Amino acid sequence: MSTPRPDFLAALAGRNDGPPPLWMMRQAGRTLASYRKLREGTDFLTFCKTPELAAEATLLPVRELGVDAAILFADILLPAEALGLELHFEEGVGPVTSPPVRSAADAAQLQRRDVAETCDYLAGVIRRVRAGLPEGVPLIGFAPSPWTLAAYLVEGRARKGFPALKTFTYADPAGFAAFLDLLTDTLCAYGQLQVEAGVQAFQIFDTWAELLPPPLFYELVLPRVQRLADAIDVPVIYFAKGTAAFFEQLCPLRVAALGCDWTIDIAEARQRCSGKALQGNLDPTVLYAPAEAIQRETWAMLDKMQGDRAYVVNLGHGLAPDIPESHVHAFVEAVRSWTPDHE
Amino acid sequence: MSTPRPDFLAALAGRNDGPPPLWMMRQAGRTLASYRKLREGTDFLTFCKTPELAAEATLLPVRELGVDAAILFADILLPAEALGLELHFEEGVGPVTSPPVRSAADAAQLQRRDVAETCDYLAGVIRRVRAGLPEGVPLIGFAPSPWTLAAYLVEGRARKGFPALKTFTYADPAGFAAFLDLLTDTLCAYGQLQVEAGVQAFQIFDTWAELLPPPLFYELVLPRVQRLADAIDVPVIYFAKGTAAFFEQLCPLRVAALGCDWTIDIAEARQRCSGKALQGNLDPTVLYAPAEAIQRETWAMLDKMQGDRAYVVNLGHGLAPDIPESHVHAFVEAVRSWTPDHE
Repeated sequence: MSTPRPDFLAALAGRNDGPPPLWMMRQAGRTLASYRKLREGTDFLTFCKTPELAAEATLLPVRELGVDAAILFADILLPAEALGLELHFEEGVGPVTSPPVRSAADAAQLQRRDVAETCDYLAGVIRRVRAGLPEGVPLIGFAPSPWTLAAYLVEGRARKGFPALKTFTYADPAGFAAFLDLLTDTLCAYGQLQVEAGVQAFQIFDTWAELLPPPLFYELVLPRVQRLADAIDVPVIYFAKGTAAFFEQLCPLRVAALGCDWTIDIAEARQRCSGKALQGNLDPTVLYAPAEAIQRETWAMLDKMQGDRAYVVNLGHGLAPDIPESHVHAFVEAVRSWTPDHE
Repeated sequence: MSTPRPDFLAALAGRNDGPPPLWMMRQAGRTLASYRKLREGTDFLTFCKTPELAAEATLLPVRELGVDAAILFADILLPAEALGLELHFEEGVGPVTSPPVRSAADAAQLQRRDVAETCDYLAGVIRRVRAGLPEGVPLIGFAPSPWTLAAYLVEGRARKGFPALKTFTYADPAGFAAFLDLLTDTLCAYGQLQVEAGVQAFQIFDTWAELLPPPLFYELVLPRVQRLADAIDVPVIYFAKGTAAFFEQLCPLRVAALGCDWTIDIAEARQRCSGKALQGNLDPTVLYAPAEAIQRETWAMLDKMQGDRAYVVNLGHGLAPDIPESHVHAFVEAVRSWTPDHE
């Protein structure tokens, strides 16, 4: 390319004067035919732990879609193994951990392991990715928030309404808070391992933030997200799904950026939170629609953030696996072809 | 009882001076052993259409739990039959309609029927319930919002992310809006049928409001909810799940009350919307926890709404079928035992 690449890290730092940088949550995954081919014959956990394969999966969207940042290919539940839990994947279910941690007594039984040792394959993936990335494309590491990790570990898998999680939360508030503290310790080490190996930014995924009423979210989640973010020595993005109702409460967090899901208007998010980068937030289901609609909706979003020096283009949630690959290209094309004076 | 029953209709009208009235979304359903017994040997659709059975299911929670309002036992998709669609229930899936309405061309093929005639069994249910209800316990009718009805009819069933629905929404905005108008016509007739048969309040369920970005929600959903509410000649409650981020935008609606899900703090909801009754909003998963936790969380909610003359106690979403029946009683007990000066 003759034009310089949009600068993701500059946007996180609030000093981007060029066009907005772009990446997509779940960009490294099933939407790409090349990824599905790469996965053939390898089970998911082995794939994640094989540096050549996971690094290649991380690089594919940079190469094929031309996004401005790579995100580490990994499963959100890999840190479960550092807590001594068994992790496997079930077709049609997703990640399953066992045994479930349903009480303070269960949590006391956890056999914690050295995180850097248990997850050392990640360092191998990260070093390979860094070596393979083009100039100016940073690598994002990631982890679940302590709450979202707890959601899976208590339930054992994603389950509608997360009844076991909520039972533990409400039935034993002190025991549950202590469990979250323990998870935060592990996640701090998990994040530090990634930073030491070379990730240049870090996203904390709080997919299940939406399960909590606001007062509990403030009390249980935010302080632990802060502790995790403070342990990470690169710019941190916090993406908490379903928190649009109290978005301004996230603003005091000491993180570089907040991810926005599609249930908040991005212009309103900016009004409610200045002094911090924002990332998002196209309704990911827009990508089911034809290219014309994708361009219309993408441009409408970009118009709203025109001239914002602290804005990263993304979807409001992960790319669904059944989005046609050509539609993902149409989204990228819409972002690249947008100009402040398009009409 | 020697004390008078809390007055649901007075609360909807903003003039309740007694303790707050209580009912629960999905109170008439699988949580009650008596309901499961009543259902034995009858398929769900036949059950809904048999006035003796559906009326008995409506009355059970009033009799057994002592709630202050009954809600019509019916499936949210019954109006689909008035649009000429086939409706059945699949184990583990829920209601399924066919054929799916995926485009304006599909919508043009709909064979609309006379609503009062197609759904005349509802009049039979309503009359029986009214005859069986104790003095002072009103009957609530209900319908889906046009958007939520569209969600099911386009997809054919609840499906994660509702890809077909969103494709129609984004790919053909004008055709989709016309489809919503058609659904609104049917729902107006569906609501009027219930009012004529004797319901004394009416709730519009917008379960899938959460799927839309705010600008589309304002444009597509709110005007049609208003048209539906205007057609209903009893106090209307609008429950739109996942709209806490822009709750104040619901406030101008000409309805008696707004239902709140558990993702908004009820005290904040009151600050953001005065001059209207509020209903809700205990996290329904609190009911998985032991009685002590149920009381603690329920009392915390009631403390916040103390003295509010326009407040109806409810959950923030429907009662899950696997909540132990004794926990539902614990919730009712917590509401009844609360006093403004409990500490």
